Amino acid sequence: MSSSSAARGRGEKARPGVRPPMRDALVAAAFQLFLERGYEQTTVDDIVALAGVGRRSFFRYFPSKEDVVFPDHERCLADMTTYLAASADEDEPVRRVCDAARLVLRMYAENPTFSVQRYRLTKKVPGLRAYELSVVWRYERALAEYLRVRFAGRPDGTLQADVIAAAVVAAHNNALRSWLRSDGQGDASATVDHALGYVQSAFGVGVPAGRPVGEQPEDVVVVVSRRGAPLWRVVREIETALDRD
Amino acid sequence: MSSSSAARGRGEKARPGVRPPMRDALVAAAFQLFLERGYEQTTVDDIVALAGVGRRSFFRYFPSKEDVVFPDHERCLADMTTYLAASADEDEPVRRVCDAARLVLRMYAENPTFSVQRYRLTKKVPGLRAYELSVVWRYERALAEYLRVRFAGRPDGTLQADVIAAAVVAAHNNALRSWLRSDGQGDASATVDHALGYVQSAFGVGVPAGRPVGEQPEDVVVVVSRRGAPLWRVVREIETALDRD
Repeated sequence: MSSSSAARGRGEKARPGVRPPMRDALVAAAFQLFLERGYEQTTVDDIVALAGVGRRSFFRYFPSKEDVVFPDHERCLADMTTYLAASADEDEPVRRVCDAARLVLRMYAENPTFSVQRYRLTKKVPGLRAYELSVVWRYERALAEYLRVRFAGRPDGTLQADVIAAAVVAAHNNALRSWLRSDGQGDASATVDHALGYVQSAFGVGVPAGRPVGEQPEDVVVVVSRRGAPLWRVVREIETALDRD
Repeated sequence: MSSSSAARGRGEKARPGVRPPMRDALVAAAFQLFLERGYEQTTVDDIVALAGVGRRSFFRYFPSKEDVVFPDHERCLADMTTYLAASADEDEPVRRVCDAARLVLRMYAENPTFSVQRYRLTKKVPGLRAYELSVVWRYERALAEYLRVRFAGRPDGTLQADVIAAAVVAAHNNALRSWLRSDGQGDASATVDHALGYVQSAFGVGVPAGRPVGEQPEDVVVVVSRRGAPLWRVVREIETALDRD
């Protein structure tokens, strides 16, 4: 019982306020056991015993043992869908999906210790890697579905939507993983901003935040490039030119 | 026994020559049963009974029932790794990963009927979707690892590698799925070429195949653009300019 209340205490401290305490207690108990014994060696019975609740309580919150490892993705997916649905026509679509991806980062950054522990656990357990891939895929589909609607008038709308959604997710995850590998040290937001900036430079409107798209529409940019220069370098030059003054 | 030899006959017809006949017979028997009874309702015992072989033979070729659904991905992954490892320094990296992705398309296009059947099956069975995601992830990692080496000198090398690999895979899969949805009608190669062309226009060197990169290196291209134009449109203009004459 003392270990149960210790687990609950950790859970409440780790993720303040908004979720049911029993749910938090189950997450905390689960992670305590995963770290002590390993994921495969921990059963749902072990988790509910430590949390001091019944099996039925566990399955009320989590369909399976895997779900307790990723307790916040469903909420985050719902938040992302809501955020994208609230988009206005004047929102630049690529920037909007980048901002939507930042919701995922925020979830991880809310609780660095938990996120780093989970990252290490996930790397070791193939079943959790597979689960994580399916979650990532759902985020990517949410972004792609939004872009498909926004790009409906373009000849290659679905292609562009799928490619940009994948690029945004890959950039986000590259930055997120580098932050997790640093044990949650450093500025996660700045790392992700930089990564998403690369995607925006390739696909989006290369105008920095704060300056409305389309301002001074008659301005021209002249880029002179060698024919053999890699396109990404040319693009970087254009972006620099567009951002200047 | 007659159904067994029918299955083997189908297998040999479907995938000529290079693989062991028993392996092909198992694939053919498995798909016959998956289509007749459904994937979940078919056991490994059912498959080996129809193919006329023992359980041990099945597991010699396939670690699990899921693996028999995707019998050629391991070979294709190995081919892709070999192809990327054989890359020369003068190969433009983005084009190289696009060409590597075409190996996957070729595998699907070798046998349209089988590929379309599997596509329909995979859409219906969540466990197969998860398996497919893990396979796609392995292709993406193979492309990203190659690009990480090629981009080792760039400040954002790993970021660019991960983003471009994801974009290539997304473009390939967008085209592949549209071909599969059309029941394998139409020109799969042309569809994938078009999709990969979009990725190359965003990230790669926009020089058409057959003209060496770096030819006439002193030639210049001048692009004039409105400041508010979307970057993808500017990129398309540059590409058009580079392709001209």
